[in-house]
This record gives sequence, C-alpha cells and structure tokens, in this order.
Amino acid sequence: MRMRKKKWAMPYLEANTDFVIFQPESNKGNWKKILNKDILHIEIGCGKGDYFIQMSNMYPDEGWLAIEKDYNCAAVAAKKALENRPDNALMIAHDAANINEWFLDEEVDVIHLNFSDPWPKSKNSKRRLSHSNFLQQYFKILNKNGKIILKTDNKKFFEYSLIEFTNFGYKLENVWVDFRDEDHPEDAISEYEAKFMALGQPIYRAIFSKSNVIM
Amino acid sequence: MRMRKKKWAMPYLEANTDFVIFQPESNKGNWKKILNKDILHIEIGCGKGDYFIQMSNMYPDEGWLAIEKDYNCAAVAAKKALENRPDNALMIAHDAANINEWFLDEEVDVIHLNFSDPWPKSKNSKRRLSHSNFLQQYFKILNKNGKIILKTDNKKFFEYSLIEFTNFGYKLENVWVDFRDEDHPEDAISEYEAKFMALGQPIYRAIFSKSNVIM
Repeated sequence: MRMRKKKWAMPYLEANTDFVIFQPESNKGNWKKILNKDILHIEIGCGKGDYFIQMSNMYPDEGWLAIEKDYNCAAVAAKKALENRPDNALMIAHDAANINEWFLDEEVDVIHLNFSDPWPKSKNSKRRLSHSNFLQQYFKILNKNGKIILKTDNKKFFEYSLIEFTNFGYKLENVWVDFRDEDHPEDAISEYEAKFMALGQPIYRAIFSKSNVIM
Repeated sequence: MRMRKKKWAMPYLEANTDFVIFQPESNKGNWKKILNKDILHIEIGCGKGDYFIQMSNMYPDEGWLAIEKDYNCAAVAAKKALENRPDNALMIAHDAANINEWFLDEEVDVIHLNFSDPWPKSKNSKRRLSHSNFLQQYFKILNKNGKIILKTDNKKFFEYSLIEFTNFGYKLENVWVDFRDEDHPEDAISEYEAKFMALGQPIYRAIFSKSNVIM
C-alpha cells in the first residue's frame, strides 16, 4: 500500500519512541519480557495498522509487534494505535530485510503476512515476503511449534507463496481458497480486506508450520 | 457425477472388450506396449469421458488409460470414444481402490484427477482420490519424473488435496487458484468444467511430483 508523504510522519514517530522502535536489534531476546507476554506475534508490513490493532485487542493476553518500513504508513498506524494505547503491542519502523538479527532463534511464536505487497514483476521476486531469503530467516526465529499465517487477495502471490513455503520444507497446516466464505471471528478484517470482500473477491489464506506438530 | 441406470450399459461394455478392460491386472507391466506409446497417462474417474477423449486427441503420441467404476458412466464414455476411435486410448471399467495392482512400480507417467468426486462428508474421506491411501499407491506406480495433475471446482476438496499431497511428501510444482483466468490451450475443457466456467466460478488446479526435478 503506497501512501503520500506526510510531513508530520517522522516527527510523530520520533516523539513516540516508547511505542515506535527504530533499533529493534537492541531488544533481541527480550521481546516477551518487554511486552510482558508469553506469546509473541509479529506482523511484517503492517501498513496502516488496522490488522494488528484489532488483533492485539482481540488477544489481549498475547504480545504483538508490528513492523512497517514506510514511515508514512508507520506514522498513521502508530497514531491510530496510540489513540487507544494497547499495552500488549509495539511497533518497529524498519525494513525487515534482516529480520533474523532482531530476534533470538525460536523467539517468535506467530508470523503474520497480511496482504503483503505482491511485487508482481519477477525481477522483484526477492522483495516478496515469501521469497526463500525470508523463509530462511523465519525458520530461524520461529519457535519449533510456531506458525506463519499468510492472507492475501492476490492470486499470483498466493500461488507463489504456497509453492515457496512447501518446497522450502514448511508444513502446510491449513489452506483456504475463499476464507471469508465462512465466518472466521478469530481473525480480524482490516479496511483493506473489507474492500475486496465488498467486491465479492475471494480472500486466500494459509497456515504453515516448521514442525510436524498439528496446531 | 451420478447417472441414471442404463440397461444398455453392461451389454455395450461387454461387446467392446477390445476397448474396455475388466481385468486390468492382466496387463500389468505391458500398458505402454499395448498402447504402443512411450508415455502413459491415466485418468482416475473419467466420468462421461469428455476429458480423456479430448486429451488423447490433443496428444496423439502419448497413451491414455481412462478408469471409471460406474458402468453407466463408463458405457457413455466408451460409446463417445468409440465413435471416433482413438488408437492411443483404452478404458478400464473397475474400481481403482487397489490401483497399484494394475501397474508395475513407476509404470505411469501422469495421473489425472479431473473433477473427482469430493466426498464432502468426513466419514467418506477415505473415498477421496487424494486420501493418503491413494497417495501411497500413486507414489508406487508413478515414474520418478512423473506427475499428478489435479483439477477441480470444489474448494474444500482442493484445500484438502493440497494439504494431503504436500504432507505426504509430494512436491507442489505448480498451483492455480483461478486456472481459467488465463488461456491454457494445453489442457482440455470438459462439458462439466465448462458449466462452472459459464457460472464464473474459479477452477482450481495443482501439479504434484514425487521428485525434486522441476518439470
């Protein structure tokens, strides 16, 4: 999701460094302690923040860490989150290209890829959050019973992701080719997702694990 | 696809035993020789035969073996096929529950599961052609570079199949969540498939291999 430049974005983020983290590697190994929760969710590419804000309210006993590299988006998300400050969520304003440097091995319980940028051109495939370079890093930081939840409206990105994850060795735990065809009150609907639903377009979702333990 | 009983079905099948085979185990190891082709495709559950008849005409240099246990369907398929007798196709009128007894190990090159009965009730899951009991048999009879091509309109059957195949250890080579969104002249459209397309419903398709060789 691209957004116009906002002059207030960087000053706002810098004025809220108790919520927005610029140097995530300094918290490596301490995320659950900082959030005071036993379960750590991360959302990579939180956009305007709709999803993690709803989810952190729906699951107040679990910790949420939302990552966004676009400062304009991050500022909108932070502002929205701070209007109803959740005590179980934090944001990271940074590119996730070297995300494995921010976490100890197995520190993360759930990784959310929610309507990630599909980067449709093949020359940009390395930027996709389901590219094997990322899958390698997720494998390292993910708990042995952890899971990755991917949701998208984009057919080609979904197909690519199914192939990449399973070929890498992740186990496909569950998959939906029309997720909103049934009620799923356990999963938040962002404004962005609601738009596709209103158009009658299917939402695709898959859950991958690194273990053979069925969750 | 269920069909009304046809009185002429069994007499017709029995009158055409040069095309319709009732005891497939007797040809074990000799299918390519009998068809005089180097490549052996099998379609399990060919219904009224639309798919394999078109495909055997599209690929005249490859051998096709269509399996149908319902004698009424098998008779309709055989009649249609024999009106324009393809010299590269045969039919088997038999339940495929013990299909591995009909072929030597690695005798089959491509297995087609085209709009298979989804058997939606979980008590019938063993009847699904993507149940692990079948996947075990396919693995045995499939050539090391062979592949399985599954196509369906049924969401739940598709999701189940993706999970079963990848968890069994098959490699997901390719997947489409809206196969007819693009032109695919390489793959025949049966009357049955055309109905779903006319309704604007997506067609799901996946290709699995038993090897790590990309085909």
